[in-house]
Amino acid sequence: MIIKLEKNLNPQVIDNLKSNLKNIGYQGNEVKTQFDHYLICIGKKPFDLRNVGCMEGVQDIHKVTDPYKLVSRQWRVHDTVVDLGDDVRLGTGHFQIMAGPCSIESEEQVVGTVKHLKENGVRIMRGGVYKPRSSPYSFRGLGIEGLKMFHRICSEYGVKIITEVMMVEQIEDMLEYVDIFQVGARNAQNFNLLDALGKVDKPVMLKRGISGTIDELLYAAEYVFSNGNERILLCERGIRSYENAYRNTMDVNAIAMLKDKTHLPVIGDPSHGIGIRKFVEPIALAAVMAGADGIIMEVHETPEKAFSDGQQTLNYDEAGQLYAKMRQAFQMRSGWN
Amino acid sequence: MIIKLEKNLNPQVIDNLKSNLKNIGYQGNEVKTQFDHYLICIGKKPFDLRNVGCMEGVQDIHKVTDPYKLVSRQWRVHDTVVDLGDDVRLGTGHFQIMAGPCSIESEEQVVGTVKHLKENGVRIMRGGVYKPRSSPYSFRGLGIEGLKMFHRICSEYGVKIITEVMMVEQIEDMLEYVDIFQVGARNAQNFNLLDALGKVDKPVMLKRGISGTIDELLYAAEYVFSNGNERILLCERGIRSYENAYRNTMDVNAIAMLKDKTHLPVIGDPSHGIGIRKFVEPIALAAVMAGADGIIMEVHETPEKAFSDGQQTLNYDEAGQLYAKMRQAFQMRSGWN
Amino acid sequence: MIIKLEKNLNPQVIDNLKSNLKNIGYQGNEVKTQFDHYLICIGKKPFDLRNVGCMEGVQDIHKVTDPYKLVSRQWRVHDTVVDLGDDVRLGTGHFQIMAGPCSIESEEQVVGTVKHLKENGVRIMRGGVYKPRSSPYSFRGLGIEGLKMFHRICSEYGVKIITEVMMVEQIEDMLEYVDIFQVGARNAQNFNLLDALGKVDKPVMLKRGISGTIDELLYAAEYVFSNGNERILLCERGIRSYENAYRNTMDVNAIAMLKDKTHLPVIGDPSHGIGIRKFVEPIALAAVMAGADGIIMEVHETPEKAFSDGQQTLNYDEAGQLYAKMRQAFQMRSGWN
Amino acid sequence: MIIKLEKNLNPQVIDNLKSNLKNIGYQGNEVKTQFDHYLICIGKKPFDLRNVGCMEGVQDIHKVTDPYKLVSRQWRVHDTVVDLGDDVRLGTGHFQIMAGPCSIESEEQVVGTVKHLKENGVRIMRGGVYKPRSSPYSFRGLGIEGLKMFHRICSEYGVKIITEVMMVEQIEDMLEYVDIFQVGARNAQNFNLLDALGKVDKPVMLKRGISGTIDELLYAAEYVFSNGNERILLCERGIRSYENAYRNTMDVNAIAMLKDKTHLPVIGDPSHGIGIRKFVEPIALAAVMAGADGIIMEVHETPEKAFSDGQQTLNYDEAGQLYAKMRQAFQMRSGWN
Repeated sequence: MIIKLEKNLNPQVIDNLKSNLKNIGYQGNEVKTQFDHYLICIGKKPFDLRNVGCMEGVQDIHKVTDPYKLVSRQWRVHDTVVDLGDDVRLGTGHFQIMAGPCSIESEEQVVGTVKHLKENGVRIMRGGVYKPRSSPYSFRGLGIEGLKMFHRICSEYGVKIITEVMMVEQIEDMLEYVDIFQVGARNAQNFNLLDALGKVDKPVMLKRGISGTIDELLYAAEYVFSNGNERILLCERGIRSYENAYRNTMDVNAIAMLKDKTHLPVIGDPSHGIGIRKFVEPIALAAVMAGADGIIMEVHETPEKAFSDGQQTLNYDEAGQLYAKMRQAFQMRSGWN
Repeated sequence: MIIKLEKNLNPQVIDNLKSNLKNIGYQGNEVKTQFDHYLICIGKKPFDLRNVGCMEGVQDIHKVTDPYKLVSRQWRVHDTVVDLGDDVRLGTGHFQIMAGPCSIESEEQVVGTVKHLKENGVRIMRGGVYKPRSSPYSFRGLGIEGLKMFHRICSEYGVKIITEVMMVEQIEDMLEYVDIFQVGARNAQNFNLLDALGKVDKPVMLKRGISGTIDELLYAAEYVFSNGNERILLCERGIRSYENAYRNTMDVNAIAMLKDKTHLPVIGDPSHGIGIRKFVEPIALAAVMAGADGIIMEVHETPEKAFSDGQQTLNYDEAGQLYAKMRQAFQMRSGWN
Repeated sequence: MIIKLEKNLNPQVIDNLKSNLKNIGYQGNEVKTQFDHYLICIGKKPFDLRNVGCMEGVQDIHKVTDPYKLVSRQWRVHDTVVDLGDDVRLGTGHFQIMAGPCSIESEEQVVGTVKHLKENGVRIMRGGVYKPRSSPYSFRGLGIEGLKMFHRICSEYGVKIITEVMMVEQIEDMLEYVDIFQVGARNAQNFNLLDALGKVDKPVMLKRGISGTIDELLYAAEYVFSNGNERILLCERGIRSYENAYRNTMDVNAIAMLKDKTHLPVIGDPSHGIGIRKFVEPIALAAVMAGADGIIMEVHETPEKAFSDGQQTLNYDEAGQLYAKMRQAFQMRSGWN
Repeated sequence: MIIKLEKNLNPQVIDNLKSNLKNIGYQGNEVKTQFDHYLICIGKKPFDLRNVGCMEGVQDIHKVTDPYKLVSRQWRVHDTVVDLGDDVRLGTGHFQIMAGPCSIESEEQVVGTVKHLKENGVRIMRGGVYKPRSSPYSFRGLGIEGLKMFHRICSEYGVKIITEVMMVEQIEDMLEYVDIFQVGARNAQNFNLLDALGKVDKPVMLKRGISGTIDELLYAAEYVFSNGNERILLCERGIRSYENAYRNTMDVNAIAMLKDKTHLPVIGDPSHGIGIRKFVEPIALAAVMAGADGIIMEVHETPEKAFSDGQQTLNYDEAGQLYAKMRQAFQMRSGWN
């Protein structure tokens, strides 16, 4: 059960509400986000919605049978649209492409990429400055100084930034240079990181874990939301399966199902989803047709020279053609609704 | 190495050729199909193509480094198109829908379905008369009499039939009533069945195994081809993964990769690929965009009353809309090439 | 529900019984095995056991809530012991080793192996004469003539034979030369083969499918049993997982769980379970401790020269040491019960 | 290549060494642990070991072809033994049991468990005070105050503590109350946490990721070691597979293989490995026979009342019997070497 509270409630009223709920067998968890104030009530006993609805302080009440609550579609009529400002919106009906290199490597690289994006009408650039790497001896990113440079150039060109955050301590430093925090597949169940990202007012994109279930992804989003941040994107990036012919197995089923289960925007990542350059195009298009609200993909001027992930990165030409096809596919899909 | 032999060769010439190949370290396997005559040469030693090319009886010669040979794209310039007659073709550029119930249940059911297909321009009907079932106590299909009825009605309406064959002994009986033999996921490595299907001149559609690899699927096709039958279709129908939110995990990566590795047509099965009715549409469309040459899907007048697989079966209305969307998506994709 | 019928019932009595059962919502499937006569009743309605118990022809009645019936432990008090004659028994309390090469290659090979087994007190020899191979160009076994030779030598030495059957047509030819029919992982859901093996009075060992579930394995056994053959062994041989460091992932959980769910003997196959020679020993011992009633493993005089599976095959010395350790481990485990 | 440096080297010597290595194509990463001082050299060019061996500052040099270096068995002759003091050692030849509840719940619970452990000669108690939970609304542990209480009681009874750390910020607070830091499966690739745990002189046990590979686990250990901490344990706790009959699939193959690939101790976790109480015993014993140097398992006075994981937790009686059997199995295995 989700109770939307009236604005500016006296704490005493909330306490009373909680103890009334306790009496009918429900534990009330208070959640205050950048937009609203809720009580998330966990319990199993049947109860009469009307009895709760008339308690003091209750503005609205919704039954949610899903195990996750705030991120469920069961209580929210309208899909969430995450607004980055400057007319850049993510969510149902607002198809967005996020493109860029795996790693931020240099100023020239960022300038070159930003120009490529601008020419192609892409509004969001991806690029890692903190890189999770299997081996401790690999390149681990340019760090906060790289991010500042990345931000300076993108601001100049009016391009938004999505970049990965790996630990709680990095959040504060990164905050003003980032438009979307990305949580990587390896941190998909790093609950402390999720808690902390729930306490800032910046959008967060959660990648599905390496072998994460749909439910685990939704629970991860519930962590962020219940800590106070409603601006969440979910990202399908391929799962680990027995098949070794590709890096990961893009799970388009997840895209279709997530669009049904939650009001949050769903993004597809075909670069990691298959991990082989020449197949990024068909997989990106498949993700769009399965219902993705956006695509995040790796682009580099010279993929073969990229510091990381070159084998799954498109060059500018290939990417430009794919942007156009994805938009055409999205247009067609939109026409059907 | 694949050697295409000249027509009507004297057996002695072939024997000589084999022993010459043996001398350079290659074992020659003779393959005679409905269309051509080949020697498939297995070995590892480097050799000079020209030396082989000038041997007696050799019409053409191709190096194939893939572990599977005849089904590899490496030697065949043109994609295979499987022609069912009456202008029904399967393969690159010829998008086909195959639809129908999981099981053939009754004459009325077949008539109703055929009419629905005709109205929607669908040329191939699916329907099982031999059903592989986990439990020995479940309905196992109407058998050969059901197939005869199925065939009688389809012939009348000019609709082609695809149906599953489960064992070698069934092939002969089924032969004249079937347009495409389907080999199910549970028989994906039933090598004797594959051998036997290589010896008839009827198209065969091979479903990927429950947890089959791309290579295993291609090897299965190699079994059929090397026994003499070049008319093969491959079908991606979802794999078994750790995710239980759906029956199977549709692997669109496989579609994209198979189209690259082999000259054979590739079909997608969204009904089994996700196993949940309301998601069949997005997954079917995703499969088309990933490169599928056709879609096989479950349709029933009243899915909730179907003998099997009702939960993943569309009714006529839903199916009709999906046919149109798939064709539109295929059209768009074709426009890009 | 499983009804054990009285011996030599008049068919009319059985028909009456079936129609009485139908009246309370149960479909009765008659099963006649080499030992007993049953009605397996499939239905969902609650009923009073006593009412059924007093019907004419009913000797005994058991409620079985598992989806599989005859193979469930719920109705059978004593574990099944499969008796091969000559004091060779398989089942709880009778630890058996089955060892031998992947493929039968020659008379010398069989004689050498049989002698090795005799010296080590191993009573059952494994060896394939029909080999399922991924590639159609690989060695596919010596066939029925190989089996006759294999049988001639083993009979002479008093060693029992387990060998794989791949198709229905082979059963009759193989029948008199085989002590246990093995169904391979690729045929784990070849239901026609299972049906046919239910109709002969020879023990059958069912390998779990490549990615088979516990339930699928038990259902496969139900196929054999419900067709009339109670002499069934189950075999855990490793599953396909995302981990590529080994050929398969030995699933000792399955051994522990199968021993709980069914009265049938459970065998472990460490050779396929890990697929790497130097680890066969610890995995074999782990399988014994998890509860296996026997171990099937690959042994060859010179593994590096074996026609197939050499990389997972032990030589005579290694095998001899392992036999002793397994027996010691089994002894210790037995002491605890 | 791993170079062991001489003690107390002048930094100038190390710099020279690094630049000499650079000249032959190797990047030297300096690693200083609680025991030794190394240069880990990453590169691909062939070189003459003797030329490097005679450089100034080099005490010893080892070629390591594995992708991970310091944790590889290739350079270390003797297995690592982690010494917790008071005669509690972990590693080859020193079998240890770690037992206790999933979560620390109360003082009475800790006292009761410690007494149970003392009576049974178990030297290490497990128990979580920071609990990773899928849902943000679940009990998340007693936190640092719980740990202090846990530590106070264990110190009194001379029992060592292993407990999970979830984030970098917790390390400092926990440091004096912990004998072994546990990194959970969900943090298996939380590289910042691994870095930080490399900088303290306390043993660290790394659980394999939910779907982690052997290589990823070894790389995680390389993170800890290369940051300065050589006292590492690895733990197999079951992987996520397609099989839903159990919570996880215990991978005994991993135990056998890890004992071969690394000099670090390997622990098995049967409680999570199968997740069902009645099967913990056979799986624990299987893990011992596969080569585990220790077992970590969940024990509770009244499992059905445990705050978490009750379904896979043994009571004192069951646990006591299992301790004895595991020791007997370990004894038998040791006798064979």
